Amino acid sequence: MVEPLLDRIALIGIGLIGSSLARVVRRENLARHIAISTRSAKTLERAEELGLGNSYTTDPAAAVADADLVVVSVPVGSSGAVAEEIAPALKRGAILTDVGSTKSSVIAQMAPHVPEGVHFIPGHPLAGTEKSGPDAGFAELFENRWCIFTPLADTDPQALEKLSEFWRRCGSNIDTMDAEHHDRTLAIVSHLPHIIAYNIVGTADDLETVTKSEVIKYSASGFRDFTRLAASDPTMWRDVCLHNREAILEMLARFSEDLASLQRAIRWGEGDKLFELFTRTRAIRRSIIEAGQDIDAPDFGRQAVEHPKS
Amino acid sequence: MVEPLLDRIALIGIGLIGSSLARVVRRENLARHIAISTRSAKTLERAEELGLGNSYTTDPAAAVADADLVVVSVPVGSSGAVAEEIAPALKRGAILTDVGSTKSSVIAQMAPHVPEGVHFIPGHPLAGTEKSGPDAGFAELFENRWCIFTPLADTDPQALEKLSEFWRRCGSNIDTMDAEHHDRTLAIVSHLPHIIAYNIVGTADDLETVTKSEVIKYSASGFRDFTRLAASDPTMWRDVCLHNREAILEMLARFSEDLASLQRAIRWGEGDKLFELFTRTRAIRRSIIEAGQDIDAPDFGRQAVEHPKS
Repeated sequence: MVEPLLDRIALIGIGLIGSSLARVVRRENLARHIAISTRSAKTLERAEELGLGNSYTTDPAAAVADADLVVVSVPVGSSGAVAEEIAPALKRGAILTDVGSTKSSVIAQMAPHVPEGVHFIPGHPLAGTEKSGPDAGFAELFENRWCIFTPLADTDPQALEKLSEFWRRCGSNIDTMDAEHHDRTLAIVSHLPHIIAYNIVGTADDLETVTKSEVIKYSASGFRDFTRLAASDPTMWRDVCLHNREAILEMLARFSEDLASLQRAIRWGEGDKLFELFTRTRAIRRSIIEAGQDIDAPDFGRQAVEHPKS
Repeated sequence: MVEPLLDRIALIGIGLIGSSLARVVRRENLARHIAISTRSAKTLERAEELGLGNSYTTDPAAAVADADLVVVSVPVGSSGAVAEEIAPALKRGAILTDVGSTKSSVIAQMAPHVPEGVHFIPGHPLAGTEKSGPDAGFAELFENRWCIFTPLADTDPQALEKLSEFWRRCGSNIDTMDAEHHDRTLAIVSHLPHIIAYNIVGTADDLETVTKSEVIKYSASGFRDFTRLAASDPTMWRDVCLHNREAILEMLARFSEDLASLQRAIRWGEGDKLFELFTRTRAIRRSIIEAGQDIDAPDFGRQAVEHPKS
């Protein structure tokens, strides 16, 4: 049997990401001991029922003691408070990382608390589903997905390599970039799509002339595609909006400008302009499928799930 | 063996919808003869290679001669021209229907050409995928999906019942409503989602600070959900935009108003307002799943397609 990569891993937060990590760490034998901590006693109890770790505590400082790797998986708005709480208990030489969807804000919140001798490497695995909580996790979540690190100027290369190896064994591909570029990139590929999805579902929910039951009945004609993102964890997404404000507002401004132009083309019957846009966007999906970042099955493969034999 | 419902069905247009109809009509033995017509000789040849029908012609008038049921499945902007071409050849007592996503415009285009004694019943099966063409169709496309009729004031109830029976045997559930209500409902559940998806993919394609390859690499974090709708047939969607203009502009105005308000909440850090919206939208997805209009598997079940054994 291969030696585990780590002696002890501490998972602070055991939602979709934390519990998926717990499962893949176990499956791949990446640590001798999985210490789990989360604020809610009820969630902790559920994690224990699911057998996700080796020890369970609502005290994050107790979980991180002696840990070689600490992964903070909480809504980004709570990063600072968690860092403050665990800082005194962190082992010298330990790696501290997070999984937050915004990086500049997480660095600003956590870095001031990190003690000398602890390697703080901000990270973001681009993986998730619309489900949340410890029951929603699964070991394959990170497979063929990217994990982005935004190392600080003084990050130790050996610690970075060790953390990279950890995520590679979880199934991820590794990228590094600076925090500002991460935040801008994620604003367009993740934050704007979620905000737009929440918004359109809200708009549909508010109509007087079309009933809610009609929206639900007829949703397969397009609307339902948005409802998946709009079913994502509200706390997580509130925090993302509050903690990547500038980049999000910039992307929203561009989106609205483009939409105004499209609206004008519809009003004035500019068929060629519509056709040009609708053709150009097709190519992007093809590239995403070629890059292995989505499946080619029609309707996201729902067909295969609904009619497994056909 | 049960008697076929129809002697002869004529399918005008053999794209995703037409070719799915051909397949389910064959599987369910709904007609003795399937006559296929489409404008493009190349598409017609492909339909013949696929063995979708019993006869093939580029002349729609030849296809509809003697047909009991004629289904026009072309971009809505071509409805008028097709109706004019086939009108003289329609059999007395025949049912003429369509599958277009806009109904007021199709009625305005087709009704004036319909001869005395032919039952014109506008229809719209709410079914489709992002794929197009005769290869993209499949017999299960209409299963558990709604087919909406927007009958005219003088529609013969027997003809309506016969057409309803046809679609039920294709797997659909039947609804009827007036054309104006249909167009407004579809504007929110289908047309606006497609337009928003095309728009956000266009916005991402135009950025200077985030490269196209980054958008593609990191698309699994949300963006890819939009690319499916934005890969839909450009001609079909150009026509929808041009032919349901008023209802679409109304829904776009509401959407933009809501987005401006959401943008303001982000700018001013109104976390409670964001949390309230993000919570409310979650309930709608649950209702859609309960109504059988989407699957509950995370990520639209992509997981099951990517990792069939897990």
